[in-house]
Amino acid sequence: MARALAEDLGVFGDITAALVPADAVARGAFVARAAGVLAGRRCAAEVFARVAPGVELGWALDDGDALSAGTRIATVAGALRPVLTAERSALNFLGHLSGVATLTRRYVDAVAGTACRILDTRKTTPGLRALEKAAVRAGGGANHRASLSDMVLVKDNHLTGLSIAEAVAAARRRWPMRTVEVECDDLDQVDQAVRAGADVVMLDNMDPDDVATGVALVGGRALVEVSGGVTLATAAAYAAAGADLISVGALTASAPSLDVGLDLVPARID
Amino acid sequence: MARALAEDLGVFGDITAALVPADAVARGAFVARAAGVLAGRRCAAEVFARVAPGVELGWALDDGDALSAGTRIATVAGALRPVLTAERSALNFLGHLSGVATLTRRYVDAVAGTACRILDTRKTTPGLRALEKAAVRAGGGANHRASLSDMVLVKDNHLTGLSIAEAVAAARRRWPMRTVEVECDDLDQVDQAVRAGADVVMLDNMDPDDVATGVALVGGRALVEVSGGVTLATAAAYAAAGADLISVGALTASAPSLDVGLDLVPARID
Amino acid sequence: MARALAEDLGVFGDITAALVPADAVARGAFVARAAGVLAGRRCAAEVFARVAPGVELGWALDDGDALSAGTRIATVAGALRPVLTAERSALNFLGHLSGVATLTRRYVDAVAGTACRILDTRKTTPGLRALEKAAVRAGGGANHRASLSDMVLVKDNHLTGLSIAEAVAAARRRWPMRTVEVECDDLDQVDQAVRAGADVVMLDNMDPDDVATGVALVGGRALVEVSGGVTLATAAAYAAAGADLISVGALTASAPSLDVGLDLVPARID
Amino acid sequence: MARALAEDLGVFGDITAALVPADAVARGAFVARAAGVLAGRRCAAEVFARVAPGVELGWALDDGDALSAGTRIATVAGALRPVLTAERSALNFLGHLSGVATLTRRYVDAVAGTACRILDTRKTTPGLRALEKAAVRAGGGANHRASLSDMVLVKDNHLTGLSIAEAVAAARRRWPMRTVEVECDDLDQVDQAVRAGADVVMLDNMDPDDVATGVALVGGRALVEVSGGVTLATAAAYAAAGADLISVGALTASAPSLDVGLDLVPARID
Amino acid sequence: MARALAEDLGVFGDITAALVPADAVARGAFVARAAGVLAGRRCAAEVFARVAPGVELGWALDDGDALSAGTRIATVAGALRPVLTAERSALNFLGHLSGVATLTRRYVDAVAGTACRILDTRKTTPGLRALEKAAVRAGGGANHRASLSDMVLVKDNHLTGLSIAEAVAAARRRWPMRTVEVECDDLDQVDQAVRAGADVVMLDNMDPDDVATGVALVGGRALVEVSGGVTLATAAAYAAAGADLISVGALTASAPSLDVGLDLVPARID
Amino acid sequence: MARALAEDLGVFGDITAALVPADAVARGAFVARAAGVLAGRRCAAEVFARVAPGVELGWALDDGDALSAGTRIATVAGALRPVLTAERSALNFLGHLSGVATLTRRYVDAVAGTACRILDTRKTTPGLRALEKAAVRAGGGANHRASLSDMVLVKDNHLTGLSIAEAVAAARRRWPMRTVEVECDDLDQVDQAVRAGADVVMLDNMDPDDVATGVALVGGRALVEVSGGVTLATAAAYAAAGADLISVGALTASAPSLDVGLDLVPARID
Repeated sequence: MARALAEDLGVFGDITAALVPADAVARGAFVARAAGVLAGRRCAAEVFARVAPGVELGWALDDGDALSAGTRIATVAGALRPVLTAERSALNFLGHLSGVATLTRRYVDAVAGTACRILDTRKTTPGLRALEKAAVRAGGGANHRASLSDMVLVKDNHLTGLSIAEAVAAARRRWPMRTVEVECDDLDQVDQAVRAGADVVMLDNMDPDDVATGVALVGGRALVEVSGGVTLATAAAYAAAGADLISVGALTASAPSLDVGLDLVPARID
Repeated sequence: MARALAEDLGVFGDITAALVPADAVARGAFVARAAGVLAGRRCAAEVFARVAPGVELGWALDDGDALSAGTRIATVAGALRPVLTAERSALNFLGHLSGVATLTRRYVDAVAGTACRILDTRKTTPGLRALEKAAVRAGGGANHRASLSDMVLVKDNHLTGLSIAEAVAAARRRWPMRTVEVECDDLDQVDQAVRAGADVVMLDNMDPDDVATGVALVGGRALVEVSGGVTLATAAAYAAAGADLISVGALTASAPSLDVGLDLVPARID
Repeated sequence: MARALAEDLGVFGDITAALVPADAVARGAFVARAAGVLAGRRCAAEVFARVAPGVELGWALDDGDALSAGTRIATVAGALRPVLTAERSALNFLGHLSGVATLTRRYVDAVAGTACRILDTRKTTPGLRALEKAAVRAGGGANHRASLSDMVLVKDNHLTGLSIAEAVAAARRRWPMRTVEVECDDLDQVDQAVRAGADVVMLDNMDPDDVATGVALVGGRALVEVSGGVTLATAAAYAAAGADLISVGALTASAPSLDVGLDLVPARID
Repeated sequence: MARALAEDLGVFGDITAALVPADAVARGAFVARAAGVLAGRRCAAEVFARVAPGVELGWALDDGDALSAGTRIATVAGALRPVLTAERSALNFLGHLSGVATLTRRYVDAVAGTACRILDTRKTTPGLRALEKAAVRAGGGANHRASLSDMVLVKDNHLTGLSIAEAVAAARRRWPMRTVEVECDDLDQVDQAVRAGADVVMLDNMDPDDVATGVALVGGRALVEVSGGVTLATAAAYAAAGADLISVGALTASAPSLDVGLDLVPARID
Repeated sequence: MARALAEDLGVFGDITAALVPADAVARGAFVARAAGVLAGRRCAAEVFARVAPGVELGWALDDGDALSAGTRIATVAGALRPVLTAERSALNFLGHLSGVATLTRRYVDAVAGTACRILDTRKTTPGLRALEKAAVRAGGGANHRASLSDMVLVKDNHLTGLSIAEAVAAARRRWPMRTVEVECDDLDQVDQAVRAGADVVMLDNMDPDDVATGVALVGGRALVEVSGGVTLATAAAYAAAGADLISVGALTASAPSLDVGLDLVPARID
Repeated sequence: MARALAEDLGVFGDITAALVPADAVARGAFVARAAGVLAGRRCAAEVFARVAPGVELGWALDDGDALSAGTRIATVAGALRPVLTAERSALNFLGHLSGVATLTRRYVDAVAGTACRILDTRKTTPGLRALEKAAVRAGGGANHRASLSDMVLVKDNHLTGLSIAEAVAAARRRWPMRTVEVECDDLDQVDQAVRAGADVVMLDNMDPDDVATGVALVGGRALVEVSGGVTLATAAAYAAAGADLISVGALTASAPSLDVGLDLVPARID
């Protein structure tokens, strides 16, 4: 937050707002200009708390609430100068994080009616992981690993000089309380992973039919995560195939910003 | 950078890579999986310098170079563990920043053959402004304001209790060396801005015909920037209308990540 | 690390070492003055790398290695001034972290011959959690939660307005991939936790007989962690009762520093 | 403080407390579970101010006050969720720092009735020096050097190429206002140090009889500090021998955490 | 700010103020002891807000206001201890920044009656650029570049392998919106710079007559900045010669601190 | 250091140096343009190490060495771009800190032939205390307190509700190892301070005759520091009056920057 504000204020602060009369005030509202899901409310509130501490925000909605074009998110009232200075930083948080929540919600809706959960990945924007993962939750998704130290996730390249069974056993020995997942490219690996006692089996880049076969093979002994190349068009098929979890890198790596604006009516104090 | 690495390493570091034998090594390459423009090379290099200091990177390309699906960006050779640990953080920088550069290049190509320049805006991802603006340059675009203290940009809401002429005069008095720009919604404002001596006139949300009229009115006395709602489909028309500059918020707010991967061949040392 | 060095160097740096002739050199060794287990090698090395970059350290041992009184841990050779300046900071890391590793090893040894693992807790010294948890691993223990966001651990006070079953279900829904543990004060709660599908059942402040009963009731459907009041004298009994895990706050909260010193032979360069 | 909270909150914050109903409240108290001396009140208060800003703390005691098992230190009242989230961080500060104050008080009590003061050393936990030294004061001790730039303390290894007289003279010349102390291993060095005009003479690893001889030799011309191997059992003898100051590394390096808990009665708001 | 306070408080805080009775209070005022211009009010206020939060400051003046010896700047009322602790840090900000504002005002007064503006340079005290540049504005001056990324300023040494015309053209191509200035040592360079379309021409180390010739040559096509060796004695002559801007490194590099003190009347609470 | 570089590089780095051909090189030297004393060498070296890591600096002089106009301080050789980028930051450190050292040396020379030492004060530029105090030492001065926690310095305002004797006694009890100084406005206070056992007596704003009387009264039982209003013209008289120490706020608060430049000969690589 401090960094985001510092990069927008620069050395001299807002040299244009300083031209505005000190007694000018403004009333207005943050308004969605497109349909979506709100996220980033606390960030926007903190931007105003730091840059425009005397300006009042009246929040009508909270993270996770649905937005249509024209939905008023929060009212704004106070001195004009600090409102103008805080505007873009607040909108950048709202737009980016609501964009993540909105795309997540679309995936969640795509698998509605099943028990399948939509997960994010570690493909997050550098420096924003905690915020983006919170936005995924606001959109109805769940979080995969927060970091490399959270869970054990054995991938192909880790199986250099050790088998799946050995990897899972070593993971259990070192990290007895943590979730252990194994990425599998084929059914033979799925079989090895389940026998080794993995908590989660990741089916990587498989089509829905193969996933259905994998789910049957696992037989409830582990959670099944589908990963790789799942789109809004194909998510339902994977869920129908019995996947417990579908992870989607695009949620955080490629969500377009949601268009949110600040409509203001400036005025001079009488 | 420190923050991005800290958020990916977490408290314990990479607990999966630690399962891999210490003497395992890897050779491979960062490879583009889609066409685009490279950006973020220095970030990826710094990730490896910090997380995998003994691993050798051999860069074949630099920021701004064109990528096709399959283009090798850099070779990687060294111990397997740190390569696996550094992989995702490096890819997150490359993917995000190359995504920005790639979208920029598409806009630049759309106005090719004219003198029109593509600009970014302040709609950047919080905390990443300097990196994203560098990626815009890598894509062939130019940078608008870095921060609120860089230039004076008078918008509608600033004109509360003062005229365009008064705003420009005040700006010149306070900041005699800095660029002064005025956002105009109609031709009357354009006329005022030019007479006031603005360096740049921003034509906001106008169609190409209105822009052509505005350009004629300005008559070379100021630069003309077009802003608001310009798409890849309409950019050429605005350039043809004589705009000097087109600013596009989507370059940094909505560029999808470019798909870049790391292809590895792990091995044990003989 | 930066903080630890800043607090020891102060505003003027080492004003006593500055009295020593610039050409004085020293040879010597870090030596254990009591039996124990080494931890903190990387910290001590980093202290020297920052404060005494030209001084050579030759490490004879690594974290986790056993120490007796008199064991040489690393040799030191270089200019006397920076060695004297770096000495205390390096020893503070070695002493504190080896103290943690040493106490951990004593608990690990106490349950040797069983499958029971010794765990740390969140009772760590403020600011040193990652280092102390690494020292626990060096001592042969395993790590419980790194932070409140790592796993779900439902305790008594969380069961305000919701049952164990509801808590576990809510945890699974929100955090489908994370370990869920329930603290239980009696066998009825153990039964509820296991039926709710908890991954780990914590038996809190029970004696070994009750633990044995609890283990039987769980019947392998979850891991059993014993917590609260376990000492070196009683650890074996709990392990014998079938506990999978024993967590001990004292590992990080009350481990005395291990006595490590730096024996030096200063000299003038001939 | 920020660091300690960040390491306990992790990426997602307290994912277990989030399961608790938002309207649950709690009343309770921080309670000592063993006898000792309180320290760390300001740290605990700051933890709550940051993590649980709406929760009221009512402090009954201040740093330096005596604690028995069962003593109520402060009352707590407010929303349950933030109380649970703040609990462990606050207790870690209270436990660690009260542990330091408690051990200090025991040494202070051991020399009661004499003019001898108990001092800490630079053997502090990395990053916590200021807090631990404040805890020593809370326990009735006094502080030796805060850092290497505070005072001049000439030890054996500094006397490479220069005599005690030369070292003291150089120290006075460079730092005319700062305390100059000389570590002495025998009476000859004591004599040299006093003649050189040292402010403090440190008698290192001597028995009480030798200390008495040293004190007589010094004859009030300098303060006499005893250092090295003093225990609770021997402190009184050193004080009786006339030592002005006794420094004890264990105060900060090996004080066990004092057992402090938070007793809570959670409830739903009616 | 945090850094300035940390360096003055040190490890233990204000150990002298701690000797004062806790119930002692003080009334007083910040008072100028010499004539000048106030700057640094916000810094001094923040020092008190952090170090002495309960102490009331009543500001009589704001940055830019004139001071005579004896002018009361702000009243102070509150507990004595924190006032004494905050005093020096607040005075250091007020003294240093008012010193900059005062020297600036003297230059501004020297060119009064002309349109010439006084500018600062990048010769600022390391770490204090933003504050010192604000003090220059408080003194009536204007700011040159904030940093190397603000504007293009082509100097002699940049013209290695490229001409003035090439440098200006390259700058325009890369940075179409930013001010481009060229440092000129003679009239031929001035001619080149103006033809190349530079926004500002810097006349370096010329006497007033040469400046007048340069101004005539430029003929209003660019702003003319005079730089190098201008003193209070010669500034008026340069302004009379038609310089638009005079930059003076001494404003920030060599302004003596303005003498500001804190007059206090301490008392015990009755 | 990081802060100083960040404020000069800004968001885009050096946009002018980027116009220079990448293969341009430069040879040159840092040169004093006025007489004085060098300080800040390590800072300048670190600027180049960070901004221009491939550029070679050959230092001819070290901190404390005398400079005349034209003295070459260090040679510079390497790529032109980074040299130009690093130049101003390096010069700002050299100029400011050499300014402090130079003014200090003038005071030191003024008291040459006596045992009197010149001291700095806490009137330092915010954030630069450690560097400025090192520059004072480079100029031959000595350092007074580094911070409020270094020594006890009892001033008038501290004597609210307690006598000098009580203040000194309390200071000794709390801080048995630290220097205790008392500021005295008249001989009666001097008498009290010496009887109380103060280590240093500060004679505040007295003329040389009164100082001589004070020195006689002290009679060697404490150091005598003269403070307040001492100038280069009067320093010798105070030293002759027997002052052990003279503290001068102007050393750090009002030293003009020493003029140091970088003379370069740029070239293209053949």
